[in-house]
Amino acid sequence: MPAITLTTDFGLKDGYAGILRGVIWSICPSAQIADITHGISPQNVLEGAFILGRAYSFFPAGTIHLAVVDPGVGTQRRPIAVHTGGHLFVGPDNGLFTRIYEQAEQSSMPLEIVHLSNPEYWLPRVSSTFHGRDIFAPVAAHLAVGIPLEKFGSVVTDPVRLQLSKPERTATGFLAHITAVDGFGNLITDLPASALLDVGQVTFRLHGREVGGISKAYGNHRAGKLIVLVDSEGVLEIAVVKGNATQELQAEVGEPVQVIVRGSV
Amino acid sequence: MPAITLTTDFGLKDGYAGILRGVIWSICPSAQIADITHGISPQNVLEGAFILGRAYSFFPAGTIHLAVVDPGVGTQRRPIAVHTGGHLFVGPDNGLFTRIYEQAEQSSMPLEIVHLSNPEYWLPRVSSTFHGRDIFAPVAAHLAVGIPLEKFGSVVTDPVRLQLSKPERTATGFLAHITAVDGFGNLITDLPASALLDVGQVTFRLHGREVGGISKAYGNHRAGKLIVLVDSEGVLEIAVVKGNATQELQAEVGEPVQVIVRGSV
Amino acid sequence: MPAITLTTDFGLKDGYAGILRGVIWSICPSAQIADITHGISPQNVLEGAFILGRAYSFFPAGTIHLAVVDPGVGTQRRPIAVHTGGHLFVGPDNGLFTRIYEQAEQSSMPLEIVHLSNPEYWLPRVSSTFHGRDIFAPVAAHLAVGIPLEKFGSVVTDPVRLQLSKPERTATGFLAHITAVDGFGNLITDLPASALLDVGQVTFRLHGREVGGISKAYGNHRAGKLIVLVDSEGVLEIAVVKGNATQELQAEVGEPVQVIVRGSV
Repeated sequence: MPAITLTTDFGLKDGYAGILRGVIWSICPSAQIADITHGISPQNVLEGAFILGRAYSFFPAGTIHLAVVDPGVGTQRRPIAVHTGGHLFVGPDNGLFTRIYEQAEQSSMPLEIVHLSNPEYWLPRVSSTFHGRDIFAPVAAHLAVGIPLEKFGSVVTDPVRLQLSKPERTATGFLAHITAVDGFGNLITDLPASALLDVGQVTFRLHGREVGGISKAYGNHRAGKLIVLVDSEGVLEIAVVKGNATQELQAEVGEPVQVIVRGSV
Repeated sequence: MPAITLTTDFGLKDGYAGILRGVIWSICPSAQIADITHGISPQNVLEGAFILGRAYSFFPAGTIHLAVVDPGVGTQRRPIAVHTGGHLFVGPDNGLFTRIYEQAEQSSMPLEIVHLSNPEYWLPRVSSTFHGRDIFAPVAAHLAVGIPLEKFGSVVTDPVRLQLSKPERTATGFLAHITAVDGFGNLITDLPASALLDVGQVTFRLHGREVGGISKAYGNHRAGKLIVLVDSEGVLEIAVVKGNATQELQAEVGEPVQVIVRGSV
Repeated sequence: MPAITLTTDFGLKDGYAGILRGVIWSICPSAQIADITHGISPQNVLEGAFILGRAYSFFPAGTIHLAVVDPGVGTQRRPIAVHTGGHLFVGPDNGLFTRIYEQAEQSSMPLEIVHLSNPEYWLPRVSSTFHGRDIFAPVAAHLAVGIPLEKFGSVVTDPVRLQLSKPERTATGFLAHITAVDGFGNLITDLPASALLDVGQVTFRLHGREVGGISKAYGNHRAGKLIVLVDSEGVLEIAVVKGNATQELQAEVGEPVQVIVRGSV
């Protein structure tokens, strides 16, 4: 029973995500399919890369991750499949898998990428606007039934990569950045909490607001308080207790967060 | 492992779609269930017919499609099941399956319709507001376990049908209509691209805006450009590249689109 | 093939609900997982209790219901599992299961509650912000593979309970309350229709509006009419035919509804 996940910007209204399931089950009737999300902001490849990069590793080895955020559909951008760390990824070559490549490199895992050029594993008729249905879903399903990766096309060595933000060292600490906002309005930064392990005191500055120290849990504070805490992936996040930090601070992805550290860093 | 799809206007907040799954699994524990959508606009039978009509055929033959957009729940409108082209459909007799009937007729497929009048296949207690739970889900699950269609009730020969828009020929080309808007804001028309195969030049007029020619892909144009392209089902759609045509043109379902053709049509 | 349901306030954008599925399948690969909802208003435990309490019993006996609306995550609030009526529930001890306790008491069903204190059934690394992933999903999956409840920790006899509204008798009938609003804008009250079985005439008053009598179905009235009818769970609900009662009446959860009865009650 192979597992397949779906990550797209299709939304849930139009039935497009349902169609992917239908195409997959037509080729691999026993596939177990889970949505990661269909709520990526339209055409926002960076956001898709972030959410997929955080979620995929919680699935069992052998899972196939189908991801479609694809503003270049119908142009020359390549359809690809990626194999690393026991997981498979299928989608457009537009940077959507950048975090997968980075994680493979950081842990020195082998990384195989294939250009999906073999039409044998596509639907017979390929539109120029819905490759999720016509190319990516059938390829994922054929991988699920056990077709080896090399059958799908030739090796790719120069995949497209996005520029991801990284925290920078400064004289007084770090310049971090907001990499994402989640549905609770929490602002997720690119600074791992581990960078601050030995600090005495730390202060965060963002949009003229200041937060001192790192909290252990939302529930330890009164509603409305602006706090910084370690998020579930180990990076620092800015939150308003029982509120919405994104709305309250009018903050956006990409904005800088000043992190001032007293004591040794 | 029979597959069942769900198409409703229930939304995703209240747990109603989850209840359908529970009822189905109580009768057919191995059913594989996929959402087509629960985001049909409340009581919009025409929209439900459009989305179901586009999605169902991508599922394997033998799939059972449960569809509930049902403003007449609790009145005399009939609950029905439809069998055609290897697919089964279960829902209210209010026009929701109009596109299924049309497709059957166009391809001369047999079409069986049954009035779901046998309470043996319903839940024991039937409310007057939630037949999705009390009649349609149990019927779909009983079909999935293999109960033959004729057991559910008597034959229907006069199902309710919606009036669907059709493109009209004009002196200079066609008068098309917007049949749907999708989550990207694309305006989907009722004119098949095949109607324009031999044309030299074509111009589209809508809300005082004009578009010349048919584009191959969104990604071939600058952001913000208004284009016409062939959508994934072969009809013409109006889109704004990396934008939202519905918002920009303030266009609505049902509105006319003038299609002016130079050369032979 | 054990069934697991999910009820959370995670929303559908960030992939958190997908991560729960990944964690579950990593431990119990054959689990069939159904969303009840991920649309509980952020941190609204009362709303979570209402929706879970209405949905769970439609799933087969043996189903495991994972519920996470958890403003106290990372504090001393206990993680618990509840066993009653053949169903299992896993989540925080903050009142989310109040309706389960009440239903068990009303039908004199045994009720077992366990403090999930055994880290053997958690993920190896537990964050302070995402116990859904780190504690509740792994526990649900271990229950699904058949680990007995008593292995997970010690018995709880004092679970946290919410104060749920109850209708009150008055000189002229009842004072009911709005307990929930659903996605159609219907206002669901706490008054069971069975309380009014023998009445001659009944009038409902809310926000200066008045409705006489109880309707059988939405479809029996013109669009826009304010009606009262028996909802699918047997309590009275206030609705606007093909409209949205919540918006039209500007009504909110907790508000009183006067029910005036002529004749014997």
